[in-house]
Amino acid sequence: MTGFADEEGVRFASTLLGSRAVAGTFVESVLGVKDDNGISMRDALSQFGLDPDHIGAAARARSELLAYVELHIEQGPVLEGLNLPVGVVSAIAGATRLAASLTGVAGHAGTVPMLLRRDALSGAAECIVEIEEFCRTDPDGLVGTVGYIHAMPGATNVIPGQVSFTIDIRAPTDAHRKLAVADIVRRIEAIAKRRKLSLQLDVTHENRTVPCAPWLKSQVSEAIKAEGYRVFELPSGAGHDGMAMIDIADVGMVFVRCRGGVSHHPDEHVDTSDADAGARVLLRLIENFRPRGAE
Amino acid sequence: MTGFADEEGVRFASTLLGSRAVAGTFVESVLGVKDDNGISMRDALSQFGLDPDHIGAAARARSELLAYVELHIEQGPVLEGLNLPVGVVSAIAGATRLAASLTGVAGHAGTVPMLLRRDALSGAAECIVEIEEFCRTDPDGLVGTVGYIHAMPGATNVIPGQVSFTIDIRAPTDAHRKLAVADIVRRIEAIAKRRKLSLQLDVTHENRTVPCAPWLKSQVSEAIKAEGYRVFELPSGAGHDGMAMIDIADVGMVFVRCRGGVSHHPDEHVDTSDADAGARVLLRLIENFRPRGAE
Repeated sequence: MTGFADEEGVRFASTLLGSRAVAGTFVESVLGVKDDNGISMRDALSQFGLDPDHIGAAARARSELLAYVELHIEQGPVLEGLNLPVGVVSAIAGATRLAASLTGVAGHAGTVPMLLRRDALSGAAECIVEIEEFCRTDPDGLVGTVGYIHAMPGATNVIPGQVSFTIDIRAPTDAHRKLAVADIVRRIEAIAKRRKLSLQLDVTHENRTVPCAPWLKSQVSEAIKAEGYRVFELPSGAGHDGMAMIDIADVGMVFVRCRGGVSHHPDEHVDTSDADAGARVLLRLIENFRPRGAE
Repeated sequence: MTGFADEEGVRFASTLLGSRAVAGTFVESVLGVKDDNGISMRDALSQFGLDPDHIGAAARARSELLAYVELHIEQGPVLEGLNLPVGVVSAIAGATRLAASLTGVAGHAGTVPMLLRRDALSGAAECIVEIEEFCRTDPDGLVGTVGYIHAMPGATNVIPGQVSFTIDIRAPTDAHRKLAVADIVRRIEAIAKRRKLSLQLDVTHENRTVPCAPWLKSQVSEAIKAEGYRVFELPSGAGHDGMAMIDIADVGMVFVRCRGGVSHHPDEHVDTSDADAGARVLLRLIENFRPRGAE
């Protein structure tokens, strides 16, 4: 049993810190990244009494581990919709994140006729509507999100000359996600071209899909059944430490229902009885555990 | 000849300060407004050595003034497109500004299926595209601008639960602008309703259209002609001190060409020869001036 430091990447915008160290894939250059106050990860670790130069010693070998199984809230609304307290995770969906920047021409909101405008925010808005429509009409679980947007100069009476926004694309398989990203990029390029906006589009993050091991999925299913619940399998749209641990162990996951699918928000909530159900499934799994090949 | 303090409303977000004082329409409650550092306008005036309680003494009566004529850069691209250094302003277009806020449900970018989302930013994007399209297809000079947008919580991997944005609508006549605003409000309400987003929409600013006096327009035109330029009449989409001065005087305006229509931006530029042309037109106007009725 373990807990990993900073899976989310909140302070240094770099994810899976603890699990990457254990998997032996910690990237040393991340130590130089600074937080919003200009403190590097290296200094933060030192100030906390840790030795950044010993991170390599945390690495474990595949031969030391039987499996990696994680218990987590779903962070989505599927189990709640099915009235199930727990579920078996089929795979951790890969994700591609892009940073987009559109540059047009700033101008006075009252004096530039509509047909002479090169409004970066109108262009970004068209991209956002297009991304949503493209994902909404996908039959296979594609999701696309623009979570951040910044328009400059950002005044009521000025046509925005530059807009930055992020794009997060996830799908149950890598092939599906990559095709979708290529298609979305083409659509954004076409919008920028038609509106005479210059476009900067960079991939900032790319995570492969991590499938859960069939032998672990079946033991998780058995534990759920043994606790008296219906077995339901669903993918994880969110990233988890299993994405790092797959390098040194087979991965399994148990999901616990949460309220309204809300996560990363003060309203995130799990009923105590559901947390209990998840803990009992995990305990049952450990008690009945048979290593791979010994099934 | 005069210059007025803070037409723009940069520090206290309240416009036409100097001209309203001269017109006798200064609103006393504005003295309590604080800047970003928490300093009230009353304190700022006192610290500068002025007496806020004597603002009323700046007021002039209609009988004291012959006319109000203003020289200003166009802040738009029309004169440049026509290769004219100066122009006669027909009217200062009225403006309506609105603050919009859409509230949906924040959620994890990877876990909430597209069809279960209530994404406030996708909703705002659809509003922005709709406002642009509505104004772009108007045949009579309507302009609409979304200059400011803020999405919360604003993280790459979180579906925005709330988005605020501003809308600035201007047209050459008050009737046209009011009809357009009503239509745009209806369209935004329909988008919010269809997407199950709650909408807060408030008018934050409403300025009537200020027509320039025909007798002043004709004397401005004569001065332009006398300086050897072609006479061209155009509306001002931007607001000016004339909007306050109309309460105590007939208003006229001379526009000077600027580069690329860019204004309120470090790239704002007027050629020296065009500034000279504008000054000569104003001088000629004053030299040849005949008061109303004495023409």
